[in-house]
Amino acid sequence: MQENFPREFLAGGWSIGIKAAPALDFAVAHSLRPATAAALFTRNNIPGAPIIIGRERIAAGKLQTVIVNSGNSNVATGPEGLRLARAYCDQAAQALGVDSALVLPSSTGVIGRALPAEIMLQAASSLPQRLQHCDFENFAKAICTTDAYPKFDSVQLESGIRIFGAAKGAGMIEPNMATMLAYLFSDARIAAEDANRLWRSVVNRSFNRISVDGDTSTSDTALLLCNGASAIPVTFPQSASEALEALPNPAAAEQIRSLPGLDPVSGQFAAAVQDLCIRLAKLIAADGEGATKLIELRVTEARDRSQALKIARSIINSPLVKTAVYGADPNWGRLVMAVGKVFDEPIDPDRLQIYFGEEPLRGADQKQLAILSDYLKNKELRLRVSLGAGNAEETVWGCDLTEAYVKLNAEYTT
Amino acid sequence: MQENFPREFLAGGWSIGIKAAPALDFAVAHSLRPATAAALFTRNNIPGAPIIIGRERIAAGKLQTVIVNSGNSNVATGPEGLRLARAYCDQAAQALGVDSALVLPSSTGVIGRALPAEIMLQAASSLPQRLQHCDFENFAKAICTTDAYPKFDSVQLESGIRIFGAAKGAGMIEPNMATMLAYLFSDARIAAEDANRLWRSVVNRSFNRISVDGDTSTSDTALLLCNGASAIPVTFPQSASEALEALPNPAAAEQIRSLPGLDPVSGQFAAAVQDLCIRLAKLIAADGEGATKLIELRVTEARDRSQALKIARSIINSPLVKTAVYGADPNWGRLVMAVGKVFDEPIDPDRLQIYFGEEPLRGADQKQLAILSDYLKNKELRLRVSLGAGNAEETVWGCDLTEAYVKLNAEYTT
Repeated sequence: MQENFPREFLAGGWSIGIKAAPALDFAVAHSLRPATAAALFTRNNIPGAPIIIGRERIAAGKLQTVIVNSGNSNVATGPEGLRLARAYCDQAAQALGVDSALVLPSSTGVIGRALPAEIMLQAASSLPQRLQHCDFENFAKAICTTDAYPKFDSVQLESGIRIFGAAKGAGMIEPNMATMLAYLFSDARIAAEDANRLWRSVVNRSFNRISVDGDTSTSDTALLLCNGASAIPVTFPQSASEALEALPNPAAAEQIRSLPGLDPVSGQFAAAVQDLCIRLAKLIAADGEGATKLIELRVTEARDRSQALKIARSIINSPLVKTAVYGADPNWGRLVMAVGKVFDEPIDPDRLQIYFGEEPLRGADQKQLAILSDYLKNKELRLRVSLGAGNAEETVWGCDLTEAYVKLNAEYTT
Repeated sequence: MQENFPREFLAGGWSIGIKAAPALDFAVAHSLRPATAAALFTRNNIPGAPIIIGRERIAAGKLQTVIVNSGNSNVATGPEGLRLARAYCDQAAQALGVDSALVLPSSTGVIGRALPAEIMLQAASSLPQRLQHCDFENFAKAICTTDAYPKFDSVQLESGIRIFGAAKGAGMIEPNMATMLAYLFSDARIAAEDANRLWRSVVNRSFNRISVDGDTSTSDTALLLCNGASAIPVTFPQSASEALEALPNPAAAEQIRSLPGLDPVSGQFAAAVQDLCIRLAKLIAADGEGATKLIELRVTEARDRSQALKIARSIINSPLVKTAVYGADPNWGRLVMAVGKVFDEPIDPDRLQIYFGEEPLRGADQKQLAILSDYLKNKELRLRVSLGAGNAEETVWGCDLTEAYVKLNAEYTT
């Protein structure tokens, strides 16, 4: 995989003592040159200190270094938490010889505890010694909290452009940006406004379409960082962005490649970015805390996409649907309930059609229910609810709800 | 308790074979005379057959007989389910010598299975033989599904008016009417419009303030039935209704008794109806599927009640808050997260104050956290979140989320 890593990045993950050793809890990715950056942050109204700093710094569309710690979110830590985050970014900037405004902090973990200042400042000062290689795999490991496994992937495109992506998820995952961190690093050369347009569309179609528990974290961050080291230029003009909005989700790679205004190299890049983000998003959903199954839910034949999405989110977040999937129980009445509880989107029950995989449900046919129960034992499930109201559709991803989710979250701190 | 039962009612609960014997699954309450009726039904857009019939019949403000079955909700059963519900109501009406338009059906249980027609029709025909006493306790037992215990209470007021209330809950419980059935029977004499005004206010302040899992059932029904057999008149004029709206929730009994436009007997009646409904609502929340703890959550110092309620619902429905309560973990960061994720209600984090019981939280004080962990081991907890934004407040009730909720719902049907 190493040969796919984008050029002119240094990266790694270490154990610095925020979590109990030997757990990795400190991840840094550093571009050898200032890079084009686009980022989206949590919509939670009580964001962590790193989010407040990140929003300021992303405005200029340029970053060079990302410092992530896991084990402590630096949320609800007041002015002291904010001061500390600025201080260790300054420290890192000085040590690496970059502008402090180009350093992005991210934190994930428990809320409301002081982040250990000494440890963070020391780790930041030691970055020149630590950053000897491009070890993106350890970067991906060190950003995890309750994740069962690290989530990363990389690709080299025909054009030569390389992209590496890493994400962490697990709990507090809701479609509006999930408790998650996701970073895509590439050596493509792209202007800030193009990167921003592309990233907004893609995040909305991937990380904003997953749900684990309907909770939205105070630390969510999704960052695209392109340092141009491949010298291969890509664009994503307004015309492509508008045409992408009109495509169903997920759009096929060919559809993205032939968006108006995109040259072949740019089309390939946009398709690869979407593909990587959806792969990472599905990994997050599949690794929801305690989850045993990934659910891909399509709501089709909706009046419009807003209706499709509202109903899809109601279903994918319903504890009764999620427990039924866990129990491999084709209790489709709960799907009906979850469709009906979207009060402001009345639908015609007689036109409702439910599918398990490709199989249209035939109501109370006991023989079919036994077959569907077998289908629900798969690790990856596809459900479809067709509303019979129009032509719009949406796809979301989620997971089942298990005793292990409860156990994990009842025992998480203190 | 029997002496509190309202006059001129017959009632009972029996096993007729919808569930496996000896579980009670058929409940009937019958007034000896046509009675004033007010009812609220689920807001779910795919309601059961009984809800469709109930909405038609409640319009006239008069009912005489309530027929409830548990074990099958008669939802998503098409025209056949609707025909059957009308047929067994007709059968019961004929057997009891009442107008069929005065018979209200209710059903609760699995969705999407045909309700056994033979059994229901036969049970309806046999009502004159069955209804020999006023056995409201068996009525309360027979409406249950996964409830751990029946939920009922009764009272005789100084005026002589008697009220009996029964409810069932357990799962699919969300503030907007919960998966629940609730019935209040009284021998007060009240006009339909007064009953309707009072009932809307009270249901909104009790059953609409509880949550178990955020799911909203297709069968929710809350009925007030007053047959006037005490010959004691009560009123609930518009002036009282408006003044009640302005009171915080729950309003103290004295506050309700002194609402403008209420004579003392009517004031006492209104206060008793609120009190009974809140007691039943709290029983439903405490007996949420798998729950071990009742949570009473107040959101205070809100800008207005709408803000207080939105934030209260976000907290009481948060799986991460609910699992923390289960684990007796004073992980207040999750409360902060749940306050912040109400995107359209930004609040000032610096003015936020959290209370466990009466105890104001002092952030990361480890000694206090140990005390709060002990507090969270109680079976009934009070949490308060003060927003520092104004003077409005709201109270909601919910429960913890446990492995047992998952187990129960993973194994419920098939």
